[in-house]
Amino acid sequence: MPAPDQFPAPPPARAPWRATVLTLFPELFPGPLSASLAGDALRAGLWSLETVFIRDFGIGRHRTVDDTPAGGGAGMVMRPDVLGAAIDAARAGNPEAPAIYLSPRGEPLTQATARTLADGPGVLLLAGRFEGIDQRVIEARGLREISIGDYVLAGGEVAAMVVIEAVVRLLPGVIGQIASLDEESFEDGLLEYPQYTRPREWEGRTIPEILLSGDHARIAAWRRAESERITRERRPDIWARRPKKPG
Amino acid sequence: MPAPDQFPAPPPARAPWRATVLTLFPELFPGPLSASLAGDALRAGLWSLETVFIRDFGIGRHRTVDDTPAGGGAGMVMRPDVLGAAIDAARAGNPEAPAIYLSPRGEPLTQATARTLADGPGVLLLAGRFEGIDQRVIEARGLREISIGDYVLAGGEVAAMVVIEAVVRLLPGVIGQIASLDEESFEDGLLEYPQYTRPREWEGRTIPEILLSGDHARIAAWRRAESERITRERRPDIWARRPKKPG
Repeated sequence: MPAPDQFPAPPPARAPWRATVLTLFPELFPGPLSASLAGDALRAGLWSLETVFIRDFGIGRHRTVDDTPAGGGAGMVMRPDVLGAAIDAARAGNPEAPAIYLSPRGEPLTQATARTLADGPGVLLLAGRFEGIDQRVIEARGLREISIGDYVLAGGEVAAMVVIEAVVRLLPGVIGQIASLDEESFEDGLLEYPQYTRPREWEGRTIPEILLSGDHARIAAWRRAESERITRERRPDIWARRPKKPG
Repeated sequence: MPAPDQFPAPPPARAPWRATVLTLFPELFPGPLSASLAGDALRAGLWSLETVFIRDFGIGRHRTVDDTPAGGGAGMVMRPDVLGAAIDAARAGNPEAPAIYLSPRGEPLTQATARTLADGPGVLLLAGRFEGIDQRVIEARGLREISIGDYVLAGGEVAAMVVIEAVVRLLPGVIGQIASLDEESFEDGLLEYPQYTRPREWEGRTIPEILLSGDHARIAAWRRAESERITRERRPDIWARRPKKPG
């Protein structure tokens, strides 16, 4: 029975969110994820990070991981047997997490996807190099393909960092003020309103009067209107998809 | 007059592409950009990287860089006077480069943008932290706002790495085989076709027969059809925007 001073009961202890990255460059991790918010949360045990070195599963004395593309063409393709073994080993260590291959052909990463991943046990991220990976391993291991944007990188490592950073800041306890999350871009289907801070005048430019009025209702209305204007002007695609208010 | 063995004349020597990152975490750079393609090119002098430590321009004994948002709300906003001075210093060192602020409110980064940046002298990238930056500095310094995708990160540093990596691999001399660039995702308005390599059979899965036929014309047609199918199925938005063939 809980003692009276434990009411309301604390939430059930949650296992840390677990990220496993499969890579040819494990030395790049945690890298930028060791700084600031994500780094503090890593050190606090709110999430964990491990890497699987794909070359450990390479073939022969040279631990080969790639070969020429079937049908010809430039570059090299990562072998399915090597990647299949690496994924199986990674899954043994992080069995509940969805397995994602970072690829420009994947579904675009969104804030909603980051939130769904944050609600789960963790993630397994395959960072490819060279021209890509053999299609058969995507199908055989049921990899979900995710793209961080419509551009091409030299490898999946920085993309894996993007996914992890987007998710980690949403984990409970990582950002103190929940309001800080609720008002940011995408959470209500809109881009964020403009921000201002001190000094009140800078290079002849002033802060909009309304923000100095102390009238919280008018400030909230102004910010909402600015969010809507900016979204409509800059991203008609997001504006068209925004959740409509009931009624 | 050029000596006969200099015909055709070599291209004019090109200054290295210069990236300048304004950040509160300069120790994160080059980080993942030191590996593989981008790292080799950095060491070869094909591009250069410097950081500007925003805190060096902070106010007072504590070198304050942020303050509370005008109008209230959670989090902190980076001050325009601090950022203005940091940007001016960065521009003095890299005067020809466009200045970009990485923000989810920005125009989406595309492969075409990366190519345009690669054709220029370099880039100046402002990596924000906290709730964002004062709107006045965006306007006063004419910052171009770019977003790497529709999600929120803890700061702009990893986004800056994404921009740099996407651009650097397009610089002359970074990737040996030009064909490798021409056939990848987005270059012809399509996602890339599936890749296969050895072994010929893996876990009962085979390589499509056509890729083993040696018939280059049929292989090219198959790859084109696969690219079109995948783009149509996965990204109707890209499919609708693709460049149409003349006639």
